[in-house]
Amino acid sequence: MRTKAAVALEAGKPLEIMEVELEGPKAGEVLVEIKATGLCHTDEFTRSGDDPEGIFPAILGHEGAGVVMEVGEGVTTLKPGDHVIPLYTPECRECASCLSGKTNLCTAIRNTQGQGLMPDGTTRFKMLDGTPIHHYMGCSTFANHTVMPEIALAKVRDDAPFDKICYIGCGVTTGIGAVINTAGVEIGSTAAVFGLGGIGLNVIQGLRMAGCDMIIGVDLNDDKAEMAKKFGMTHFVNPTKVENTVQEIVNMTKKGNDQIGGVDYSFDATGNVKVMRDALECSHRGWGCSVIIGVAPAGAEISTRPFQLVTGRVWKGTAFGGAKGRTDVPKFVDWYMDGKIEIDPMITHKLKLEEINHGFELMHEGKSIRAVVEF
Amino acid sequence: MRTKAAVALEAGKPLEIMEVELEGPKAGEVLVEIKATGLCHTDEFTRSGDDPEGIFPAILGHEGAGVVMEVGEGVTTLKPGDHVIPLYTPECRECASCLSGKTNLCTAIRNTQGQGLMPDGTTRFKMLDGTPIHHYMGCSTFANHTVMPEIALAKVRDDAPFDKICYIGCGVTTGIGAVINTAGVEIGSTAAVFGLGGIGLNVIQGLRMAGCDMIIGVDLNDDKAEMAKKFGMTHFVNPTKVENTVQEIVNMTKKGNDQIGGVDYSFDATGNVKVMRDALECSHRGWGCSVIIGVAPAGAEISTRPFQLVTGRVWKGTAFGGAKGRTDVPKFVDWYMDGKIEIDPMITHKLKLEEINHGFELMHEGKSIRAVVEF
Repeated sequence: MRTKAAVALEAGKPLEIMEVELEGPKAGEVLVEIKATGLCHTDEFTRSGDDPEGIFPAILGHEGAGVVMEVGEGVTTLKPGDHVIPLYTPECRECASCLSGKTNLCTAIRNTQGQGLMPDGTTRFKMLDGTPIHHYMGCSTFANHTVMPEIALAKVRDDAPFDKICYIGCGVTTGIGAVINTAGVEIGSTAAVFGLGGIGLNVIQGLRMAGCDMIIGVDLNDDKAEMAKKFGMTHFVNPTKVENTVQEIVNMTKKGNDQIGGVDYSFDATGNVKVMRDALECSHRGWGCSVIIGVAPAGAEISTRPFQLVTGRVWKGTAFGGAKGRTDVPKFVDWYMDGKIEIDPMITHKLKLEEINHGFELMHEGKSIRAVVEF
Repeated sequence: MRTKAAVALEAGKPLEIMEVELEGPKAGEVLVEIKATGLCHTDEFTRSGDDPEGIFPAILGHEGAGVVMEVGEGVTTLKPGDHVIPLYTPECRECASCLSGKTNLCTAIRNTQGQGLMPDGTTRFKMLDGTPIHHYMGCSTFANHTVMPEIALAKVRDDAPFDKICYIGCGVTTGIGAVINTAGVEIGSTAAVFGLGGIGLNVIQGLRMAGCDMIIGVDLNDDKAEMAKKFGMTHFVNPTKVENTVQEIVNMTKKGNDQIGGVDYSFDATGNVKVMRDALECSHRGWGCSVIIGVAPAGAEISTRPFQLVTGRVWKGTAFGGAKGRTDVPKFVDWYMDGKIEIDPMITHKLKLEEINHGFELMHEGKSIRAVVEF
């Protein structure tokens, strides 16, 4: 079949909207009509050419929602008409990682996915001249239709709006999951969130859900504070306005019998390795846990004195918020529909596919939290 | 009273054996006759002048065992005749850290201890000419008698030999505690231990107790393998004899359905920041947990790509094996007396106080695992 897609032809170039050829689903695969897709910094990381593992031409996009149109041979858990959210982290429930019960990082199709290919080593997308177009993060939601492995689709309820729940395909789950799955934040904790963009705001609402007493937001831009407060931020620090951000947070969290200070949990949602260090070092001696969420530039390294860890801090990271996609994503959709989590105020812009490059401009200008393309 | 001690007069100089003045215990303090003390790398780190926080003159030593001789006002948990192990990490059971239940890093006397002073800000030791001599790590076990806070003494059973259980005051507890308290190793795990000295051997016996299936020892010196095997090491890697230590360990641990490889737990017992990185990176994607035990040179920093953490590895550290001294140390002594843990083969040298500098030579030459001074 033919479908319309925004294609990344070359690193650093704007996406081009075009008709492409899409082959039907093979065994274990599913054809999905994408109804909406968010624009995430990771898409832009690849589009811009900053991602050293970027492969072109490709159809980017990994934060979508849609409807199953056709299933390939052997597909048993999905049928045409099912509403689904594509998963860049699949959940096969059979590999050593899934069976470990200790990680969400399913490895069933990792190798081919990393090469922009379907599990059989080929692509379903082609240019009209026959040139193969690579898949991206196993999703390619910047196309009106895509083909995905069954294990990389979460079936969700039918009454949830695509233009909101697409965000659960990445940002919402990453932020809230970092709090509840990776950090395991308990009621009454203190926390600091570095970076109040789309991920940071979701970390904040995760912390509010988890019953944090003190939620400190950190951002270079004062304008970010207002929205963050709406999601549960209780205190704000602008690093350009204090002498030492780490010391400021340590001092803010001293109380009563505890004159050591430091947050119980901290989260980096910036991708800046220096900020990751600050996040670790402002966490509490003895038990502070710091979680890296942001994606750092190629080759960048985190560092600290080992003393920081020897005195009880724990350094962790999270991918897709530690969520097991097929298991957890439907639950997040329920939470949204039940009003436990908010998404609507974060979807600041709605675009047509033809306007997708404008969406990246909004991202760069810091004007959008999330821009969503609706088909 | 007067007692005999090995005094560190200046950084980098041999210890000098001399008579010193020791004031009796003040309120909350206890006079202890030290019966035996181990020589640890941390003592040497300070003696040598490498420790930027070293204070002189001081009586070093922090791995001792002895008998209570006299208690100061208000001391309720100890009486003359009690056998005790000095604790460089006290356990007050009242500070925010102790009450958190999340760390062993009691902060009740941290500030004064770091300055080589008793909690009231003075020293109990003096030269015969009246010059104050600093305490060391709150213990100063290189003296035949010492004064310590009640909260820094673990009461242990009377029938345990001082020349063995003194090692529980640091090395044994640090190594075994890193496994059972900090890492929380489960039965059937795989593990790698970097550095097969006194700490590394205790990590290994901790891993054996915890029921590890595969215990990989890593050391530059092949001669270390024999003893390590006796404590439970199942595999040995000499980094000078393989192309890439991390890849070697990853390959060794691939099995069956799991072709990713990597150990479930890794431990650095070298203090080398490059080794700390290898230890992290040879741990399993998705859930590997790496624990830093070794003390790094002043100013040294650990580093890695954040991707290592984002893909599920956890970086931790441990001090005194996460053990709460007054609670856990008596249990470790019981385990030794019950034959659950071995200490005897690790006490390779017995010295008189007058021979203490020879003990440091043995350490540098790699000839001793633990040299113990008996009074």
